[in-house]
Amino acid sequence: MDFSGLSAFPITPMNEEGVDQAAFEKILQRLVDAGVNSIGVEGSTGNYPYLTEKERIQYAALAVKASRQIPVIASIGAFRTRDILLLSEQLQKSGVSALLLPLVSYHALNEDEVFSLYETVSKHVSVPVIVYDSPLISRFAFSDDLYQRICQLPHIQSIKVPSAWPNESEAYLRLQRLMKSLPSSIQIGVSGDPTAANALKRGAKIWYSEWGGIFPQKAKELLEAAFARDEEKIFHLSLQFEPFWEMSRHYGGSIRPIAAAASILRLTDKNNLPLPLMPISMKDQDKLKRAIVENNMN
Amino acid sequence: MDFSGLSAFPITPMNEEGVDQAAFEKILQRLVDAGVNSIGVEGSTGNYPYLTEKERIQYAALAVKASRQIPVIASIGAFRTRDILLLSEQLQKSGVSALLLPLVSYHALNEDEVFSLYETVSKHVSVPVIVYDSPLISRFAFSDDLYQRICQLPHIQSIKVPSAWPNESEAYLRLQRLMKSLPSSIQIGVSGDPTAANALKRGAKIWYSEWGGIFPQKAKELLEAAFARDEEKIFHLSLQFEPFWEMSRHYGGSIRPIAAAASILRLTDKNNLPLPLMPISMKDQDKLKRAIVENNMN
Repeated sequence: MDFSGLSAFPITPMNEEGVDQAAFEKILQRLVDAGVNSIGVEGSTGNYPYLTEKERIQYAALAVKASRQIPVIASIGAFRTRDILLLSEQLQKSGVSALLLPLVSYHALNEDEVFSLYETVSKHVSVPVIVYDSPLISRFAFSDDLYQRICQLPHIQSIKVPSAWPNESEAYLRLQRLMKSLPSSIQIGVSGDPTAANALKRGAKIWYSEWGGIFPQKAKELLEAAFARDEEKIFHLSLQFEPFWEMSRHYGGSIRPIAAAASILRLTDKNNLPLPLMPISMKDQDKLKRAIVENNMN
Repeated sequence: MDFSGLSAFPITPMNEEGVDQAAFEKILQRLVDAGVNSIGVEGSTGNYPYLTEKERIQYAALAVKASRQIPVIASIGAFRTRDILLLSEQLQKSGVSALLLPLVSYHALNEDEVFSLYETVSKHVSVPVIVYDSPLISRFAFSDDLYQRICQLPHIQSIKVPSAWPNESEAYLRLQRLMKSLPSSIQIGVSGDPTAANALKRGAKIWYSEWGGIFPQKAKELLEAAFARDEEKIFHLSLQFEPFWEMSRHYGGSIRPIAAAASILRLTDKNNLPLPLMPISMKDQDKLKRAIVENNMN
């Protein structure tokens, strides 16, 4: 697959009974209609740690079918290497185009363990693997040197770097360093929606976007404006996204507000998160509703 | 059960094939022989997130049998409330005396979610529940107020507070506050081995100990010295433990060095951790071996 453009990461609507398949299909259809470049299912926004192995395989297969010709990426993150390899095998069989490997650690991992994990996976797969760097969740900071070593392994084709970690200027300097030092076969992607446009203006090729999973049309416009370095349009679209990004900051992550937006857009029931995760407040739901209408996000 | 004294938390020896049952029984026997007050299986040191639900139930039942009259505590930590309730039910059936509820979060939890989780669990169980506060793993900081609310729920009987977080003096001030403010039915316990003796001297009643899971005899001596406020003995025993605590600091956690110690003591095979976790270096294994001999820890 081609690692460029907008890779939209939808939620997996679920409740205590299981995954809401009809709602999941509606969300996927919205991404297909918007013509995103790829769809990343069961990523962090897709709540993969809250799904069983069986559900992860079943609903990734469903996503491949629902996404038509659009390539599907699925996460293989798990505590154990054994489970990661098993998921890789099954997800490849179900037809996903690439695998996303985040670090899920209970006991924080060290550099040797992380390299060894990527090495083992790269030996076992036949589709591209994306390195997923999410330091706040994994409690692991990739060094430039480790990135270089991992990016020389077979099948590693893209990295997903946070666009504002530990802050936006350091993330920018790092992006510059990585663009120079990584093999040219590696497509550098960014996550971290509010700061992604800046990274895309500065050379990142693919936007692994959480809010793009619910507002794919607007996210595509923002991405295109960034690639075209159209400052006025970037400013205008960022302003429209701002209430949503503000909500992510307020809740210490996007999952809860994006789940609320999915319900407001009538793509899912109100009840679309796995306990212990709880919905955002009624007041914030109203705020989101107003922002969706005012900024014409539906 | 009585929440006091030494609660020893053994590793669950395992490899890519599964749990090493014979080794697990040897480790439990060592704790029984030392006469610890309780045994906490499948806690953080017991690598519960790396076990399947089925394994957690099976080996907790085995621990209940192997531990004779000594009460067994087992962790019910999981990403989903649904799994936590299922584990609670099954573990109670298998005969454990208390349940330990750590926060396992992918998306960091907020205060309402944490309270609601404890509330739900407390409604569903019939054995005591221990609140497990491990901020570095859970990325969640309990407030005093939240502690108070949770400790008024039925079945909550003990808390496991880190003895040096965010540093030892603040942890001490907090211990003092909690001793005054929590219901008298709550037994305050501490984890964080190198600083536990100070907390035990100052009023904590139970030591939830990682290194006590491998060196139960010495840990019991240290606990008794702390309860007796025998400074000289505390100093002497702490000195013996220091090389082990140093190793935990060096590896950013105790699991890998304790697993190495288990193999050095010939309780397990060399290969006793689940990938991606890797053993400590050969040099550090030699260091541990020397410290075990010199300090007469076997």
